[in-house]
Amino acid sequence: MSFLDQISEPTLLLNEQIARANIRRMVEKAQRQNVRLRPHFKTHQSWQVGEWFREEGITAITVSSVKMAQYFARHGWQDITVAFPLNRRQLPQITELALQITLNLTVTSADDVLFLREHLTAPVNVWVKADTGYGRTGIRTEDTTALDNVLKELALTQQHTFLGFLAHAGHSYKARGVEAIAAVHQQTLEKMRTLKNHYLSDWPHLQLSIGDTPSCSAMEDFSGMNEIRPGNFVFYDLMQNLISSCQIEDIAVAMACPIVALHPDRNEVILYGGSVHFSKDALPQQDGGVIFGLVVPLTENGWGAPLPDTALVSLSQEHGIVRTTPELFSQFKIGGLMGVLPVHSCLTADVARSYLTLQGKQLEHLSGIIV
Amino acid sequence: MSFLDQISEPTLLLNEQIARANIRRMVEKAQRQNVRLRPHFKTHQSWQVGEWFREEGITAITVSSVKMAQYFARHGWQDITVAFPLNRRQLPQITELALQITLNLTVTSADDVLFLREHLTAPVNVWVKADTGYGRTGIRTEDTTALDNVLKELALTQQHTFLGFLAHAGHSYKARGVEAIAAVHQQTLEKMRTLKNHYLSDWPHLQLSIGDTPSCSAMEDFSGMNEIRPGNFVFYDLMQNLISSCQIEDIAVAMACPIVALHPDRNEVILYGGSVHFSKDALPQQDGGVIFGLVVPLTENGWGAPLPDTALVSLSQEHGIVRTTPELFSQFKIGGLMGVLPVHSCLTADVARSYLTLQGKQLEHLSGIIV
Repeated sequence: MSFLDQISEPTLLLNEQIARANIRRMVEKAQRQNVRLRPHFKTHQSWQVGEWFREEGITAITVSSVKMAQYFARHGWQDITVAFPLNRRQLPQITELALQITLNLTVTSADDVLFLREHLTAPVNVWVKADTGYGRTGIRTEDTTALDNVLKELALTQQHTFLGFLAHAGHSYKARGVEAIAAVHQQTLEKMRTLKNHYLSDWPHLQLSIGDTPSCSAMEDFSGMNEIRPGNFVFYDLMQNLISSCQIEDIAVAMACPIVALHPDRNEVILYGGSVHFSKDALPQQDGGVIFGLVVPLTENGWGAPLPDTALVSLSQEHGIVRTTPELFSQFKIGGLMGVLPVHSCLTADVARSYLTLQGKQLEHLSGIIV
Repeated sequence: MSFLDQISEPTLLLNEQIARANIRRMVEKAQRQNVRLRPHFKTHQSWQVGEWFREEGITAITVSSVKMAQYFARHGWQDITVAFPLNRRQLPQITELALQITLNLTVTSADDVLFLREHLTAPVNVWVKADTGYGRTGIRTEDTTALDNVLKELALTQQHTFLGFLAHAGHSYKARGVEAIAAVHQQTLEKMRTLKNHYLSDWPHLQLSIGDTPSCSAMEDFSGMNEIRPGNFVFYDLMQNLISSCQIEDIAVAMACPIVALHPDRNEVILYGGSVHFSKDALPQQDGGVIFGLVVPLTENGWGAPLPDTALVSLSQEHGIVRTTPELFSQFKIGGLMGVLPVHSCLTADVARSYLTLQGKQLEHLSGIIV
């Protein structure tokens, strides 16, 4: 029986071979560039996928919530960075984790450090979140007054260890093409190195951590960085392909959706598969419109290349509308399945809540389990 | 202890009093207009919220997936319409349900009817999906050739009962203001009545079912309709407010998010609350931009009116960015909570996976349980 026969509802397929190749490529690059790879596990959120990283020698990871840290700690990960601003309301959970594993937290202000000193007795390591131009959060690398204040508080904090500066150059997601990625990346490298030089005399062991998938995928030079933390690269997606982080063939996940209605008058195929299955990130098109996925043929061995002029053009809660060509339309049958490459694999995996491998094995996602 | 003290992660608050008032208002309108209310339960997907409907005399419901039908059947609902095109790959589940409850399915083609006749032995009722102008799926009401074919197949089908035509005027979601809703609604009423007149001699018991929240909320005239199936009205949201289906005070859900960082230089507040918590429907603004929610003050009794010039302007996976005014900025503290009215409550509830009432009670959502 093929894995396809198991599918009666929208199901996120995971090609283990592609994902493992993506992992291996990043591990090799990190070794080649002599930088520590601390992969971000927010994309897959699966202990089983985590094991594929472990088999490549990975021992330290990144997550974006305390809940994810708890989950991966339960599955044997002993060195976890929560690359998200300290959530003070989770102090009890943080305390518990800090007693079990090497926990690395991220702070965005001197006040955060004061809070940790006064309220967290269990020792943790502390990254100071630096903003190299993304403008989401963290302290701007130019704002030495604010940085001085944070480091002053850290110097007063005996029980916790200051690690260094952590940045996420999320503005690389606005890049289109390798040159645009390189511009963001070079700016980040320079700002981070300047920061290190500025504080090195007082903090000789100060480390630098960066890590967005576009830069880590498309760039080779990480001079001066101690650590990279890409996450999305394990699966990639259409957005990463648009940015130039990956080839279409590197995308390791595809949604399989039942076909429930056909509209030959407008060459449209109605899928059981909507915004609750794909989430709703859209891929901008050259004509100014957007699409929510590209259609791929499903086979016993996985999926093929995207079909020409065929895309998921609309999503409502449970329905998806695929528009195709008159030539291709006739190959779709009600009751059949359609494969769709997602725009943003992190969000699609989060709402899919589990994976089905091409061998028919169900893999866990944190969002699909009761904690 | 206030319900607010329980919150350490993004949490969807549900004001039971507002939701019950929304339910009661729709029940009263249906009684007044002598039309059956068969509410769509895809918005809340909670057996507990379902009980609030039952207390108002509701006995028949609508869902948008077989899984939802199974869930509500387990919770005692005996008459369920799946208002989604027949998913042939779930034949075993459909058969099981059809043996337990009054199951009403939706077909979009003569071929669907043939499939039911040949493969589904347990009796069901059948709605034919009619397209009154939305253009998502269903048979255009003008396409009498296709409709004739479906009805011919239904006439040959002994074990299943043809109920009539079911439409969803989802294009009312593009309306802005009551007049625009009325235009969509009148068109739908006329097209549906024309359909009925056309087929009434052959099918004297033929029924008509419509039901989108904008029309059912803002309109009073449902002449000729047997049934309405609105769903979103139980919670409403900012999109419905923009359309003119509801007042801001009618919105029954708000996300409570921990504040994790502050950026006084740009009056921005960073929330633990991102696209995995809100989903990603955006509300268009007059300046051409979009927002993802409006900020409300949280109190022991729930929440107040939206704060002026303060909105959730950006979402990444776990982060939300709220932009506010210099005057209001000072009231926000790291470690505090912020309330956010969602743009699309159906999607937010789906990713939230449960509710917290203002009395501190946890309510279930189907997406948060293991089936």
